[in-house]
Amino acid sequence: MEKLRILFRPRTGIVLNVLCKQKTCRFRIAKSKMSSVSNPPQSLLKPMVIPQKLLMGPGPSNSSPRILSASALPMLGHLHPEFTKIMDEVKEGTRYLFQTRNNWTVCVSGTGHAAMEAAVCNLLEPGETTLSCVNGLWGERYADMARRNGAIAETINKPMGQVFNLQEIEEGLQKYRPVLLFLTHGESSGSTVQPLEGVGKLCHRYKCLLLVDSVAAAGGVPLYADDWEIDCIYTGSQKVLSAPPGASPISFSEKGKEKVLKRKTPVRSFYFDMNHLSNYWGCEENPRRYHHTGPIMSVYALREGFSRLVEDVIIIS
Amino acid sequence: MEKLRILFRPRTGIVLNVLCKQKTCRFRIAKSKMSSVSNPPQSLLKPMVIPQKLLMGPGPSNSSPRILSASALPMLGHLHPEFTKIMDEVKEGTRYLFQTRNNWTVCVSGTGHAAMEAAVCNLLEPGETTLSCVNGLWGERYADMARRNGAIAETINKPMGQVFNLQEIEEGLQKYRPVLLFLTHGESSGSTVQPLEGVGKLCHRYKCLLLVDSVAAAGGVPLYADDWEIDCIYTGSQKVLSAPPGASPISFSEKGKEKVLKRKTPVRSFYFDMNHLSNYWGCEENPRRYHHTGPIMSVYALREGFSRLVEDVIIIS
Repeated sequence: MEKLRILFRPRTGIVLNVLCKQKTCRFRIAKSKMSSVSNPPQSLLKPMVIPQKLLMGPGPSNSSPRILSASALPMLGHLHPEFTKIMDEVKEGTRYLFQTRNNWTVCVSGTGHAAMEAAVCNLLEPGETTLSCVNGLWGERYADMARRNGAIAETINKPMGQVFNLQEIEEGLQKYRPVLLFLTHGESSGSTVQPLEGVGKLCHRYKCLLLVDSVAAAGGVPLYADDWEIDCIYTGSQKVLSAPPGASPISFSEKGKEKVLKRKTPVRSFYFDMNHLSNYWGCEENPRRYHHTGPIMSVYALREGFSRLVEDVIIIS
Repeated sequence: MEKLRILFRPRTGIVLNVLCKQKTCRFRIAKSKMSSVSNPPQSLLKPMVIPQKLLMGPGPSNSSPRILSASALPMLGHLHPEFTKIMDEVKEGTRYLFQTRNNWTVCVSGTGHAAMEAAVCNLLEPGETTLSCVNGLWGERYADMARRNGAIAETINKPMGQVFNLQEIEEGLQKYRPVLLFLTHGESSGSTVQPLEGVGKLCHRYKCLLLVDSVAAAGGVPLYADDWEIDCIYTGSQKVLSAPPGASPISFSEKGKEKVLKRKTPVRSFYFDMNHLSNYWGCEENPRRYHHTGPIMSVYALREGFSRLVEDVIIIS
């Protein structure tokens, strides 16, 4: 008897072709149960072509060939020891980047906004007051997120292109008595670098924690999270680190960690809950438990971004 | 005068070397302001080595060379037309995967849990009752997320390894009158495939929407979201699609979309808010606006995962 080879489209349950030795007989042996959208989109049958672009606007930077190559390394499981070793290296790179010894130093499995959201939903409880320093898009975005999370978000405002001085920040702290102050280190919409020295100490005099968005700054300008008493700082992978967006470093001071541990209400997000993330990222003595499947390739690439940061020197003359 | 080349470590403000023509003079001209954690971690100076592993456990699957190569293509901006074209192809791939015409079909910029969280925080408002069908880890996880989001999460339970029949689901709907029912299509912790035919129709009789987690199933078994009246379905990129984790397809029916649009309270998460994501993913007639920086490489890879799905035939005999 002649051997048949049957080609089967697995998702749909449809047998497409029965191949005899000499010829292909094209018929279906199972009636399609599929709705009228069953046809495969033709655009997906064409190859994907990505042009080379020089990226110097908002959004990601160009990634170096070394980082791109790292994104194409073989997949590992999210709890394989070879992968958790890379997570440890990314953690060390993050500590170096932020100049901190913070125990709670991890990556959020998402892009920069995800890290902002992680900061908000871990550090704020419903009804608490937070103060956002608004001199561009990011202060507004933070206030929006904080309100969605049930907090009262007050603002102090300056025109785009200007930064806040210590006196203006102190007036805000006196007026609103927030539990958390938000500052944008590199305000990309106004092209400013916010001076951070002295702000943490000032906040702590008012029993307020300091949260810093350094997505567009970290790695590009001096940054000393411990010396500057920053309680939570995050960045993206896709700016100075030149890695693809997808895993976002974040670090909490001891005061920041304590605020999360003493919450009366659960963190509103499971995905961003630092009680779990700190375990998955090996910040605690307990063995790592499954929390979620981390973005494996994004972590590889970010590791190479940190590796370049550590090696990096720039010729300035 | 002899020209000098000065090597500068940008983040720290330290000048490392001044290179004359004949020799390297190693000295610092700026005193380090850095704290005691200033030294770069030595582990990041070593090359990263990733072994080949056969992945058949929980977590990601192996990615094909074609998908890995796509992860290493040049970076594009998150609103470049070349990138939004790829987003459109991923959207079409998602519609094909789920067999749906749903307008609100997008990817969440995170791994599978992020898509679950997006479903929860868009479809549930505080105080609403949801019913989770628990026959393993995922039903429990969903109930946890729903409670964190302020909803009342009831459960019906079966031992791991068993699935729910229509009668059991109807008893749950009658008892709890939920606004949203959660079912796990492929319950990886119990190795079951939940039959879904008839569940949507049943839910709609009780004015309840149907939410399906198909992270471990979509693409591997027949799935007809429109015919089965599923109101929200999501999956991960890292299972049957064999792409890296990092971007997670999700789709809302017209009823699901209407529920989100008629919310009395804002979606608790800015990052996962479908009002914004549907615009960023070009589901609406308005021009796309910046919402967040999408995970560019994860979307490239997912596009190739869909491309393979569209081409895929399996020889079964």
